[in-house]
Amino acid sequence: MPFPDRTGSASSEPSSGRTGISATLAVNETIERKRREGVAVLPLGFGEAGLPLHPALTRELAKAAGRNSYGPVAGSPELRAAAAGYWTRRGLPTDPELVVAGPGSKALLFGLLLALGGEVALPCPSWVSYAAQAALTGAGALPVPTPPDEGGVPDPDLLAEEVARARRAGRRVRSVVVTLPDNPTGRLAGEPTVRRLCRAARELDLLIISDEIYRDLVHDPAVAVSSPALFAPERTVITTALSKHLAAGGWRLGVARLPDSPLGHRLRAELLGIGSEIWSCAPAPVQHAAAYAFSEPPELTEHVDRSRRLHAAVARAVAARFAAAGCRVPQPQASFYLYPDFSPLAGPLADRGVRTGPELAELLLEGHGVGTLPGSAFGEPDTALRLRVATSLLYGESEEQRLQALHAPDPAGLPWIARSLDRLSEVLEEVTAPQPALTGPQPAVV
Amino acid sequence: MPFPDRTGSASSEPSSGRTGISATLAVNETIERKRREGVAVLPLGFGEAGLPLHPALTRELAKAAGRNSYGPVAGSPELRAAAAGYWTRRGLPTDPELVVAGPGSKALLFGLLLALGGEVALPCPSWVSYAAQAALTGAGALPVPTPPDEGGVPDPDLLAEEVARARRAGRRVRSVVVTLPDNPTGRLAGEPTVRRLCRAARELDLLIISDEIYRDLVHDPAVAVSSPALFAPERTVITTALSKHLAAGGWRLGVARLPDSPLGHRLRAELLGIGSEIWSCAPAPVQHAAAYAFSEPPELTEHVDRSRRLHAAVARAVAARFAAAGCRVPQPQASFYLYPDFSPLAGPLADRGVRTGPELAELLLEGHGVGTLPGSAFGEPDTALRLRVATSLLYGESEEQRLQALHAPDPAGLPWIARSLDRLSEVLEEVTAPQPALTGPQPAVV
Repeated sequence: MPFPDRTGSASSEPSSGRTGISATLAVNETIERKRREGVAVLPLGFGEAGLPLHPALTRELAKAAGRNSYGPVAGSPELRAAAAGYWTRRGLPTDPELVVAGPGSKALLFGLLLALGGEVALPCPSWVSYAAQAALTGAGALPVPTPPDEGGVPDPDLLAEEVARARRAGRRVRSVVVTLPDNPTGRLAGEPTVRRLCRAARELDLLIISDEIYRDLVHDPAVAVSSPALFAPERTVITTALSKHLAAGGWRLGVARLPDSPLGHRLRAELLGIGSEIWSCAPAPVQHAAAYAFSEPPELTEHVDRSRRLHAAVARAVAARFAAAGCRVPQPQASFYLYPDFSPLAGPLADRGVRTGPELAELLLEGHGVGTLPGSAFGEPDTALRLRVATSLLYGESEEQRLQALHAPDPAGLPWIARSLDRLSEVLEEVTAPQPALTGPQPAVV
Repeated sequence: MPFPDRTGSASSEPSSGRTGISATLAVNETIERKRREGVAVLPLGFGEAGLPLHPALTRELAKAAGRNSYGPVAGSPELRAAAAGYWTRRGLPTDPELVVAGPGSKALLFGLLLALGGEVALPCPSWVSYAAQAALTGAGALPVPTPPDEGGVPDPDLLAEEVARARRAGRRVRSVVVTLPDNPTGRLAGEPTVRRLCRAARELDLLIISDEIYRDLVHDPAVAVSSPALFAPERTVITTALSKHLAAGGWRLGVARLPDSPLGHRLRAELLGIGSEIWSCAPAPVQHAAAYAFSEPPELTEHVDRSRRLHAAVARAVAARFAAAGCRVPQPQASFYLYPDFSPLAGPLADRGVRTGPELAELLLEGHGVGTLPGSAFGEPDTALRLRVATSLLYGESEEQRLQALHAPDPAGLPWIARSLDRLSEVLEEVTAPQPALTGPQPAVV
């Protein structure tokens, strides 16, 4: 039987399988398979927080296990009030009526893009799923490079140029996504850049979607995140979730903060319409636990502080290994990601037949059991010899090891983490050391 | 600031808010608001099972509350194996590799429609969200009337005619949805109709999506559900969930069974790609409890039996009240829905200015606090004087009342249910009794 073809009408463009499963989730599944096969692996591909839940969060979910009603599409009043409080404490006063919960901020981002229609400008590089989601809505993405050494925000001048060019070509660009702090680079765009981005978005009449899921994992607690909601409040949607700072990725709970403007109110209605037809509501028992989490009791705040210190220590230690191997590595500022650039090692890599980022990631994964993602998964060209390295799955394979890492004054010195770091250095040396004479028929010595 | 308009390119058609929030969820929210305002309400609008969770299910979720990993997009191996066993015990041998879990069967249905592209043929009437989802994918729906007195399956002859007509007009129809047993009608299409539907789908090269979420709630346990997967196994996807027979709607857990054919394998890959970009995975703690549920331990099987008897008793009692008021009511065969037809009462209704289904539902809701949904919410014309009546929220307002209903030999005789039935009869009498002389200036008696 022929599979329905996709040619013909533009309405079938919303595809999917052409790119297959999300790259981050796919590398996770490959690493798990290799581990089951007994291969020694270094899991640096998947952006999971790598820590157990705080027991108080587990307790709250268990308490709410009997909640079986759908409740409002937007989420329970208690959850929306708690999320509003969370943002208000961060200098962003929030009306609970403008909070919308969903099964993960990923679902909310998809709903927002679907509600807006039109193309979305994205920083390049940026998280794998933004462009894939844009393709699923049938619209598409407009990649715009980030300023040098600042991840997560398209260069505002380039944004204006690219949007103008696209519009002259008849394309409709409606929104821009920023990631503060950033995945994949682990960098945090500074206030001047965010202000310029807001000015450009206003001039271009773009909605700003600010993905702030890593907000509470900035390594230096004295550094503030400058949300575009501060400078362009009428057009900024913020999304966040429990997945990263509270390590509850598998729970599926995200929240969006819609702007208090006519645009925001219309967008909220559209998002609720979409949510009601695709996901109904966020899981009800999880909503209860999330309300507790967003109320930020001291036990959780202290836990997030500890997690942040652990992420910082290990991310820096891994960055140092890449730097020692000859990579150029922007210093990670937040979360558990870094984005080493192998171009200084292009020569020895080319000697091994590695000329692209995907070839480099493939060599590391298949040849050495090191799972990473190439920059191309984040929208960069294949020729970019950059990798997104997630450091949080190094904390341990057992819950006991992870908890030890969480409480260690020098986590990178723990034997299992130190061994992973050493293994990483070995592999990096193997793949980047100058190549000895090639094998094959050699001319006779004369 | 102008809201981005939607005119122009077909790619922006994926809309949403134009229809607003899903009709079923909206009537639920209205009823809840009226209840909070102290209005006496009869909640017959929302398709929630109206029962507490079985304590064993709650216990399993609580046990798994600490599960915070994403795990595979398709769902955990234990959940997929359990769901495969569930179907295998129903005469549908299933490979766990062809099971895909998601946050509700609603999300899976959306993912399937998005993966397939093209238009989808729908029974008319059918569940509110199929057509809304089709619109969100940018494609659209082709409504086809059901055979007389059989809900949930488009009349196979009309299906062939309508698909041929649509294709001649250049439209691409790719799939057909059936609902077995049916929401909104509470009817179960018989095997001869399902066989004819399968033959038509094969001739037309349509994928069949069989929504079997009410499968375990057929009132007469001797009546078997004839899944199209029996007769067209190469092209039938089945979806089901925990929401209805186990009353876990707010948990968000559904599963799909893909066909074991080249089509099925390709569709699985597309669905996983879409799932990985929209929802990542079903909530991990819920997956654990769902694996337990689909393994069908005796305590849950007995609980489902009891629930089915309760749904049958109350649905029949409510149907009798509508019939006594003069409606035509097809006898409900499954779940907790009925679909009374008020056309025998069109005269007295017209005297009250009620000429359409939406006007009738509005009169009942705003005038009498009775929440139902008009047939138009299910794809019928406004002129259809039919209502979808959900009977499961009559079991009680407290968990104690609902449990009493679950264990009562004659639940319709429980005081709070009997009062609701009597109130329903009163309201029906009020809105359908022949109208006395109209108010307003009367001619003087001469």
